[in-house]
Amino acid sequence: MEIATGIIEFSTEGFNGIFDITSKVQEMIGNEGFAEGQVCVSAIGSTTGITTLEFEPGLVKHDVNEMFEHFAPYQKNYQHNQTWGDDNGAAHLRSCLTGTSQTIPFVNGELILGTWQQIVFVDFDTRPRNRKVAIQIIGRKD
Amino acid sequence: MEIATGIIEFSTEGFNGIFDITSKVQEMIGNEGFAEGQVCVSAIGSTTGITTLEFEPGLVKHDVNEMFEHFAPYQKNYQHNQTWGDDNGAAHLRSCLTGTSQTIPFVNGELILGTWQQIVFVDFDTRPRNRKVAIQIIGRKD
Amino acid sequence: MEIATGIIEFSTEGFNGIFDITSKVQEMIGNEGFAEGQVCVSAIGSTTGITTLEFEPGLVKHDVNEMFEHFAPYQKNYQHNQTWGDDNGAAHLRSCLTGTSQTIPFVNGELILGTWQQIVFVDFDTRPRNRKVAIQIIGRKD
Repeated sequence: MEIATGIIEFSTEGFNGIFDITSKVQEMIGNEGFAEGQVCVSAIGSTTGITTLEFEPGLVKHDVNEMFEHFAPYQKNYQHNQTWGDDNGAAHLRSCLTGTSQTIPFVNGELILGTWQQIVFVDFDTRPRNRKVAIQIIGRKD
Repeated sequence: MEIATGIIEFSTEGFNGIFDITSKVQEMIGNEGFAEGQVCVSAIGSTTGITTLEFEPGLVKHDVNEMFEHFAPYQKNYQHNQTWGDDNGAAHLRSCLTGTSQTIPFVNGELILGTWQQIVFVDFDTRPRNRKVAIQIIGRKD
Repeated sequence: MEIATGIIEFSTEGFNGIFDITSKVQEMIGNEGFAEGQVCVSAIGSTTGITTLEFEPGLVKHDVNEMFEHFAPYQKNYQHNQTWGDDNGAAHLRSCLTGTSQTIPFVNGELILGTWQQIVFVDFDTRPRNRKVAIQIIGRKD
């Protein structure tokens, strides 16, 4: 059993921006030469999310944000905002509920995912950010 | 440290159908002879969910679906549905929020769970499906 | 690759009480002498949650509970409550959605988290409890 850790970085605009990072995760499995194991995908930051989603415009550009607006709207005056003179209480709540880490297994060097199931990073914050996501693989290489 | 990967399969009816898969996960730990480690339970498909839940009829048959209906109702005309002539936008949203993977540790060959805490698979889709869930164990056997 | 499992215990009051357990997790990585790996933090009990959150009073004491009240209010008469003469249906629903386990990677013996991103345990139940959270590390030590 072996381990490898990488970081992927990208620039975001926030406000529920969703990024498909499946190919980057798959690529790292191949580059490191793993055959069977699991990838822990873990976002850095308390206004981020990691989950799986069919990466198509209807969900990505509209439906997911509408769902989150229902119980954590961006415009609400949260206690968090009042305490810190901040405006991103909604981002923290969405992150807390989505989770910032998911672990996906692979066999024969291929992620075990459905055809329409992509690993996505979500930036819930209210301003542009430079983001980092940790990709850690544990498995065997034989 | 060793690794083992299995797939469990079953037929579902969708619409928030919930399945207790704890015994199947526990069985695989025993069959493979692991003593200490963790099991990554990861569902294949973007309209599925993996979580833990007290598997009792009140929650399973009624309350969980009612909660999801509150912010991702099945009957809503999502952008996803309009784009693809589909009817399962709610299923994608529920999956995105629930997550499709959970990792549970075990010691002495026994899952570390509460008495009323079961590992469940949820099928959020809107039609019968044949489903697969990956069970991957990493740990030591002696 | 090596493995270590520990249990942390504490007393809670329920009703969305949130505990920052980051330092306990970080401490165990140091005590066990791990350099690179991941920690699976998994709560025991079907009315608990594990997630990450900026641990500040606005979110912890107010906003998170208000969000959960929106779709799983404590005072609602759930089917779960009616079936079992219980009063904690909301706690089960919140747990089911939050998840009871998260895995966080570390390198150079340090958890990969944002500055304002803490690992938190949430007790959703409706009475004081003695709680246990399993901390399991898999990684390499040298």
